[in-house]
Amino acid sequence: MKLLKELILSEGKVIGDSILKVDGFLNHQIDANLMYEIGKEFKRRFKDLDITKIITIEASGIAIATMVAYEFGVPLVFAKKAKPSTMNNFYCSKVMSYTKNKEYDICMSKEYINKNDRVLIVDDFLAMGGAVVGLYDIMEQAGAEVLGVGIVIEKGFQTGAETLKGKGLKVESLAIIKGFQDGKVIL
Amino acid sequence: MKLLKELILSEGKVIGDSILKVDGFLNHQIDANLMYEIGKEFKRRFKDLDITKIITIEASGIAIATMVAYEFGVPLVFAKKAKPSTMNNFYCSKVMSYTKNKEYDICMSKEYINKNDRVLIVDDFLAMGGAVVGLYDIMEQAGAEVLGVGIVIEKGFQTGAETLKGKGLKVESLAIIKGFQDGKVIL
Repeated sequence: MKLLKELILSEGKVIGDSILKVDGFLNHQIDANLMYEIGKEFKRRFKDLDITKIITIEASGIAIATMVAYEFGVPLVFAKKAKPSTMNNFYCSKVMSYTKNKEYDICMSKEYINKNDRVLIVDDFLAMGGAVVGLYDIMEQAGAEVLGVGIVIEKGFQTGAETLKGKGLKVESLAIIKGFQDGKVIL
Repeated sequence: MKLLKELILSEGKVIGDSILKVDGFLNHQIDANLMYEIGKEFKRRFKDLDITKIITIEASGIAIATMVAYEFGVPLVFAKKAKPSTMNNFYCSKVMSYTKNKEYDICMSKEYINKNDRVLIVDDFLAMGGAVVGLYDIMEQAGAEVLGVGIVIEKGFQTGAETLKGKGLKVESLAIIKGFQDGKVIL
C-alpha cells in the first residue's frame, strides 16, 4: 500500500534499534482515510474467505477493524486488556509484550464468539506475534475457525509471521519493515 | 436514529436501575454498519462546523470516531486512559466514572492537539458528563476550540447534557434514554 508506506517513511519515528512509533497516523492520532483504504485492501486480499467476524485487540486495533468489518459487512469483536471481575463468561489468554517487556491478559466474552464463527484477525503491528497468538488461542477455546491474519505493519526481521504461518494461517501484511538503519525505516 | 433505537431496545441489557449494557453492538462486539450510519448522522448534524479533528477516549469511542472522522475528512485523536511514563509531552485530566465508582486519568499528546484545532468530541455514552468534561479540559489546556459534542446514547435522566450545555456547547445525542422500568429501557 503506497499511502501507508509513504506515511511510515515520512511520519514514523524510530526509537532505539527495534521500536517504530506511528502515533501520528495509527496509534494515537488516526488517519481515518488511511483506515478506509486499509479496510478496502484487506477486503481485496481476503475476499474469497467466508468471514463472519473481524477480531482484534483494544485499543489500536479498533479503528482498523471497524473499517475492515464495514467492508466485509460483519461485526467486529475486540479483546479487552482488562481482566473482567467475573471470569466465568470470558475466554482469556496471556500475551507477552516484548516492546513493554511485560505479560498482560486479553479477554473476550463467550457471548460474541462461538464454534460457528470463521474469523479474520487484524492488528496494527506484528513483531514476535504475541498478540495474534493470544487471539488465536481465544478462537481455539471458542472453537471458532481462524481463516486469516491481516497486519498493517510487520517487522519482517522478527519471527511473528513465521510463527503464524507455522499454524497454517494466511498472513497478509500491508507494509513489511526490513530493518532500521541510522534511525530510518528500511521497507 | 431508528436503527440505533431498535438495537438498544432489542439488545440492550438493563442492570440494576442505572446501567445499560450494549456490549452486543457498541462496547465489545461492534456493529460496523451502525458505526457507518452514526458517522453519517453526526456529519449531517454538525455539517456547518469547520472541524479539524474528532476527539474521543479509548476504547469504546474509537470505532465511532473513526467513522465520524472519515465522514468529515479529518483525523481523530483518542485520549489514552494510561498515564504515560513521561508526562512532559502530554495534557492530562482526571475523570470520575460513576458507573465504576473510581477516578482515572486521561492523557493526550501535545503533538496532536493545538490552538489551531476546532474539534468535535464524540463518545458512546453521556451520563454525568465526566469523560466529555475531561476531554473539554484537555482541549482548554491545548487552546483548541470545542465546536460540539456528539453522543451515541445519552442518559437523559442524568445531568451530563446540562453540564455541557452550560459551557455553551452544542450537544447532539442520537438516542436519549428517559429511564428504566422493570428492567426495560424507556426511550
